[in-house]
Amino acid sequence: MTGKFYGLGVGPGDPELITIKAINIANRVDILIAPETASGKGSIAYDIIKGHLVDERKIRFQTYPMTYDANKLDSTWNENVKEIMDFLKQGKDVAFITLGDPMIYSTYIYIMGLIKKMGMEVQTVPGITSFCAAASRLNLPLAEGDETVAIIPAAYDCENLDEIINTCDNIVLMKPSKGFEKIVEKLENFQLADKTVMIQKCGHGDEKIYHDLREVEKDKVPYLSMLITKKRGE
Amino acid sequence: MTGKFYGLGVGPGDPELITIKAINIANRVDILIAPETASGKGSIAYDIIKGHLVDERKIRFQTYPMTYDANKLDSTWNENVKEIMDFLKQGKDVAFITLGDPMIYSTYIYIMGLIKKMGMEVQTVPGITSFCAAASRLNLPLAEGDETVAIIPAAYDCENLDEIINTCDNIVLMKPSKGFEKIVEKLENFQLADKTVMIQKCGHGDEKIYHDLREVEKDKVPYLSMLITKKRGE
Repeated sequence: MTGKFYGLGVGPGDPELITIKAINIANRVDILIAPETASGKGSIAYDIIKGHLVDERKIRFQTYPMTYDANKLDSTWNENVKEIMDFLKQGKDVAFITLGDPMIYSTYIYIMGLIKKMGMEVQTVPGITSFCAAASRLNLPLAEGDETVAIIPAAYDCENLDEIINTCDNIVLMKPSKGFEKIVEKLENFQLADKTVMIQKCGHGDEKIYHDLREVEKDKVPYLSMLITKKRGE
Repeated sequence: MTGKFYGLGVGPGDPELITIKAINIANRVDILIAPETASGKGSIAYDIIKGHLVDERKIRFQTYPMTYDANKLDSTWNENVKEIMDFLKQGKDVAFITLGDPMIYSTYIYIMGLIKKMGMEVQTVPGITSFCAAASRLNLPLAEGDETVAIIPAAYDCENLDEIINTCDNIVLMKPSKGFEKIVEKLENFQLADKTVMIQKCGHGDEKIYHDLREVEKDKVPYLSMLITKKRGE
């Protein structure tokens, strides 16, 4: 019998912001895959879960280089999928841990797609998203009453950004480090810069919060950053 | 010294989808407020957390009638806030439990606003949102690569609904029981009905999933329902 594949959201950074379900499954499976962006660089997802593990020997690090080039992804990542498939075919249960929530902009989505295609049983366990963690950290409601919310991956050039800013009440711009100045300029043009909060590395030891975007060091915006804009104000 | 006020997200329904942090704080505080829509009707948030409580005697039920009338809210709810304030002034730490995530369409947002205004210390602990839980349950990515996501509270008439459907890649329509037929008609007009999944009472015992909206009993849509539309398909 083949094993079962799990995706486990471990939340945004605080080791206490992980669910009972993710911990229980992590301790039950045979192999726990922890992704790192370069070999030996370490895994944030692993740092979050490690204190909850009964036996750390099941951990297996896999390298997933960060790239926006879909072709490059295929060749490097497929080797990792092959390794996972080998474990599953040996009847071993495998869990893949992922920062935040597995169904929102994660590497896991891509891996899950391939594993599902090969007929394996898959179960995904949700995690606390970075934007929910940030909103709670700031006591800043993300959505009240009839308000709509847009989630935008700011690492990409969003073609419809103007329309979205025009139509949605609250806007979450995730990972705005690339092109940060352009994004701030746009918010200023829409007269929304002063209705925007920035949070960098929410829940991590070196977390920073900016209620005034002019105070942000524009060339030192970390990858795990986020802007939350509320049109009706706080 | 006054007590501290906490908002604890308990997640969407599965008692295992609660964070370690919410459980720890619930067990540490003096009073745990569980909201119910009518006196004696019971609290879904309480049902989720009760198995994790060391001492159930700290539970205090408060009634929050469901209404979309903001004036009516004020008069009924302020009595509950007064009770919370009395506990805080006695130096007791109080936690308010809330379904899903506290910063997304929750009663807690309103309560938190009043308590903060009165100068009390507030800490909010995020929870798994219903839409993240639904996406994981379906192994359906909510956002991949450059995709944008809109969250829409379908219980209200959303003026910009057409524009949002036009501009965002993925659309989450929360609580569409009111006016369900009109919403489905709109999705059909946009040729998006067959790119939409419905999930009712995700993670609860009587959960239902519909990949074909024509199979939904239109007059029996439960309050805790959701539609997830992905323009580019699954």
